[in-house]
Amino acid sequence: MALPNPDPCAGDVLGAYLRAQATAFLRGLRLHEESGADAAESTEAARVLRGAARRIRSSLVTFRPVTETAWADGLRTELAWLSATLSDEHAYAARLNRLLDALHRLSGAPGVPAPRGAARSALTVGSARAAALLDRQLSLARTRAHSATLQALGSARFHAVADAVAVLASEVPLDRIAAAGRTDDVLVPLAAQAADRLAEAAGALPLVRAAHPYNAEALVDDEQQDAPWHRVRSLLHVHRYAQEALAADVTRLTAAGEALDRHRDAAEAAAASAAAARTPRIAPATAYALGVLHADQRHEVEAARYAFQRIWQRAGEPTGAGAGTTAAAGAGA
Amino acid sequence: MALPNPDPCAGDVLGAYLRAQATAFLRGLRLHEESGADAAESTEAARVLRGAARRIRSSLVTFRPVTETAWADGLRTELAWLSATLSDEHAYAARLNRLLDALHRLSGAPGVPAPRGAARSALTVGSARAAALLDRQLSLARTRAHSATLQALGSARFHAVADAVAVLASEVPLDRIAAAGRTDDVLVPLAAQAADRLAEAAGALPLVRAAHPYNAEALVDDEQQDAPWHRVRSLLHVHRYAQEALAADVTRLTAAGEALDRHRDAAEAAAASAAAARTPRIAPATAYALGVLHADQRHEVEAARYAFQRIWQRAGEPTGAGAGTTAAAGAGA
Repeated sequence: MALPNPDPCAGDVLGAYLRAQATAFLRGLRLHEESGADAAESTEAARVLRGAARRIRSSLVTFRPVTETAWADGLRTELAWLSATLSDEHAYAARLNRLLDALHRLSGAPGVPAPRGAARSALTVGSARAAALLDRQLSLARTRAHSATLQALGSARFHAVADAVAVLASEVPLDRIAAAGRTDDVLVPLAAQAADRLAEAAGALPLVRAAHPYNAEALVDDEQQDAPWHRVRSLLHVHRYAQEALAADVTRLTAAGEALDRHRDAAEAAAASAAAARTPRIAPATAYALGVLHADQRHEVEAARYAFQRIWQRAGEPTGAGAGTTAAAGAGA
Repeated sequence: MALPNPDPCAGDVLGAYLRAQATAFLRGLRLHEESGADAAESTEAARVLRGAARRIRSSLVTFRPVTETAWADGLRTELAWLSATLSDEHAYAARLNRLLDALHRLSGAPGVPAPRGAARSALTVGSARAAALLDRQLSLARTRAHSATLQALGSARFHAVADAVAVLASEVPLDRIAAAGRTDDVLVPLAAQAADRLAEAAGALPLVRAAHPYNAEALVDDEQQDAPWHRVRSLLHVHRYAQEALAADVTRLTAAGEALDRHRDAAEAAAASAAAARTPRIAPATAYALGVLHADQRHEVEAARYAFQRIWQRAGEPTGAGAGTTAAAGAGA
């Protein structure tokens, strides 16, 4: 049994991670080509593609000095374009599911004996119409996004991205000198910078408030209030992928990221509900159901902040430069 | 310095409590007569009257065997009538305040820089109209309740109640034999029965669920779901007044009762919002704001359950027969 190299160089570690992600990307692409009309397979293919594209792009940003920078900067721009295109369709579909599930929950599941609450009936009347309205609006948006995805995947621009990723799968263009350095000297400090940016942004969040359940702060929806949380979500994902590259344990980061994903999804679902309520000539019962739904999703936003704060504070301290040290230990294991 | 009697008889303890409450009742009545057109004084007078009436009635129920029962049963029926009459006006006023405060909070306070959330504008449009609608509906109900209160307070029936309470203020009609017993032997077991009824009802509540913040259980409003909580609220007040009579510490019971008061108020406010949404020919924006408001108040219901559960579980165990023992110690102090 060969023991793993206890002190691999930066190029080996980053190269192995990028090659693995590039391979995943190509697998997703093959899956997509083979999926044909199978919606489930096509969804899974898009999920794999999105995940790999995000990880490659994030690594090219965090570990930029270790790569051949001109090449890395170009690929990362193209991956950003691809990610944005791929995520739209998924986002609309997920938003519609989230809203329909919430309406279903709020108006009571069928099969369950109907309760006699006074408000229930008002909600039952409106929720079916609200569901139909949201379905119409979001399905239309999703269909448009689907066409845009198909068009993108057939474009010369995409083929160039796929070619670049294929190169990455076999040989990662690295900066020779930086790549020859020790992981601890090269990758760990770069990952620590990502951790620091995250720690700073997370430290500015109103976490004390969020730790107080039912603070009702998120119920007033307000893009300005949400923005810092969305920013922490992005930084958290970047930090997580950097730690993944260093083979560190990302369990807590994944859970924290999921809470902030839920935060963003609920905020966007609430906005979609508010937007639907501005449709001209809707019935009052429909508007009422959309109001309930909007508040329900803002409640989810608040719940997600609470969940994030629980995960984040549990570690005792923000994930700062110290995390880099832990990650280095993880990378050596 | 005379030390307090370390072992007072049941009649002394119950008599002192009932006399104090009867005196408070008469003070409230005098305050009401003097208040004239002063709304603040009249409100305060009604508050004092309600509080004293509730305590007298509750004590006559819990400690019934220690009283002259025929007299006690008659007075308690009349106090129930009076309490119901007095509480209506207060309830409508409080409900309107609660709903207007919530609308104000949800649509953003004036003076605060207007956030740019997409849903905000939809809510601002509707919330002013929703506020006007609720104001109209609940003010009408309150005015009717006010007339009913004035009519009740001028009635022969009320004068008979006031006379009975005046008797109580000087001499409490007690059962001679029971009243001569030791507090520990007579009052404490009766108070323990009230505690047991409460512990049983509270034990049947879904407290584990309520301990999970943001469980979203209360968002679906449902009278059947609320009913057990309302019942615990009533039993809690009865238990608390019994402990008050025994001069026990009721800090925790008061806090728990306040949480359940909030639970009931929010549930009724949510129902009022849903009822307003059924007004014919309202604008969609109004209905939307009422939907948001309804969900907000159901969120408050859930928050109140969480708060109650925190207070209730903090003691480590339900307030059962053991509380009677503590209370006895308290009464002797």
